[in-house]
Amino acid sequence: MNKTILVSNDDGVHSDGILRLAKVLKKLGDVFIVAPDRERSAASHSLTLHRPLRVEKVGHNIYSVDGTPTDCINLAINGILPERPDIVVSGINKGGNLGDDVTYSGTVSAAMEGTLMGIPSIAVSLVGHDNFDFKYAARFASKLVKYVISHNLPKDTLLNVNVPGLNNSEIKSYRITKLGKRVYGDAIVEKTDPRGKKYYWVGGNNMKWTGGKDSDFEAIANGYISITPIHLDLTNYSALKEIHSWKF
Amino acid sequence: MNKTILVSNDDGVHSDGILRLAKVLKKLGDVFIVAPDRERSAASHSLTLHRPLRVEKVGHNIYSVDGTPTDCINLAINGILPERPDIVVSGINKGGNLGDDVTYSGTVSAAMEGTLMGIPSIAVSLVGHDNFDFKYAARFASKLVKYVISHNLPKDTLLNVNVPGLNNSEIKSYRITKLGKRVYGDAIVEKTDPRGKKYYWVGGNNMKWTGGKDSDFEAIANGYISITPIHLDLTNYSALKEIHSWKF
Repeated sequence: MNKTILVSNDDGVHSDGILRLAKVLKKLGDVFIVAPDRERSAASHSLTLHRPLRVEKVGHNIYSVDGTPTDCINLAINGILPERPDIVVSGINKGGNLGDDVTYSGTVSAAMEGTLMGIPSIAVSLVGHDNFDFKYAARFASKLVKYVISHNLPKDTLLNVNVPGLNNSEIKSYRITKLGKRVYGDAIVEKTDPRGKKYYWVGGNNMKWTGGKDSDFEAIANGYISITPIHLDLTNYSALKEIHSWKF
Repeated sequence: MNKTILVSNDDGVHSDGILRLAKVLKKLGDVFIVAPDRERSAASHSLTLHRPLRVEKVGHNIYSVDGTPTDCINLAINGILPERPDIVVSGINKGGNLGDDVTYSGTVSAAMEGTLMGIPSIAVSLVGHDNFDFKYAARFASKLVKYVISHNLPKDTLLNVNVPGLNNSEIKSYRITKLGKRVYGDAIVEKTDPRGKKYYWVGGNNMKWTGGKDSDFEAIANGYISITPIHLDLTNYSALKEIHSWKF
């Protein structure tokens, strides 16, 4: 039977990364793109509750939504698609989603929403700042998607894939990794406007990280594709016992 | 030494829940409120990157930010507060944040941001839909905050606290819980506008859940306060080995 593949992202429905991804996935099944009408980076797992959403059909099996990546997956599965998809693939994001950044990432949150709805889901990001060449990442994603469709994923778990922004010949296969941790520097930049009033930009340049040899950061730094299994049950089971003993 | 307490929320700087919380916490230290200028529910862990942020001082140690809860914590710690806070307390939210909903919650995300910055953090929500009486929840939060300030929290872990929306006399102490799982029904409501065009609302009425006797939902249903330790390392460690054996 033909497979149904739902593709979304947070860079918007017209971005190169999603079109390249959809193109390679067409060899595996019926591909539907349901994605934000514009860039929604760092939208995280937010839902639009305070206003209704509009959907525009902008091409064959391509839908544009004026909401977040999470809204897109939700709408796609509950309204737009003719049947439940076999897999959700989010990306290919322009820029990495490593370590703590997954909690902010719109790309990863689309895969989270798919996972919450019980559908195997994968987020794919291409590390770098410019000159994105999605070809290699798309080919790798397609191999992984084919595997996951036939083997499924562990319960409540998505795959977060990051591809190094290198030439094909420099990329060294893949590693299964854990999330590293960003080391925060000065994350706020203070400025003064022409009328003398202060304003603030979030995010400076802090590329330091920790996490050790088996972390996603380390894999990317060494030219490997990183695949991290992300769990949606955020309960800290090992802390339950300790907290049980509290008296307050 | 006097403690510094940072308070935020996603219902906005002027909401009853945050003012009631700040009031009781003043007995424990210097309280700073840094919160969104308006409601930011379901903002999740999103950051504002595409425009600068403005901060308005709206009272003694009270600051209003035109951004998300995550922006507020980030700005407070990196710019507004005179020193690093000893604890971050987010809430008291109008409405519960249980099970999977923590991944969407602005209230919980403020506590996530505090945790990412290495500061013990607690999210507090009052379950219900209207007639919120924050008094009991605030008193309980204050006891818990006092305990956490002197005992600290497990690494990379925040506490997600939900208080049942009952009269004081009906609330039965607290339980340490794990996150339950919402069972999704029809989460999209389709409507037609006066010009015949369709539009969609996210979220219907689906109050079903699973998770068993030790879940947060079960505690609330039985009249107990629920305290869940939430881990910020989303890596599914138990899945690493399985995925290592994949060949694709």
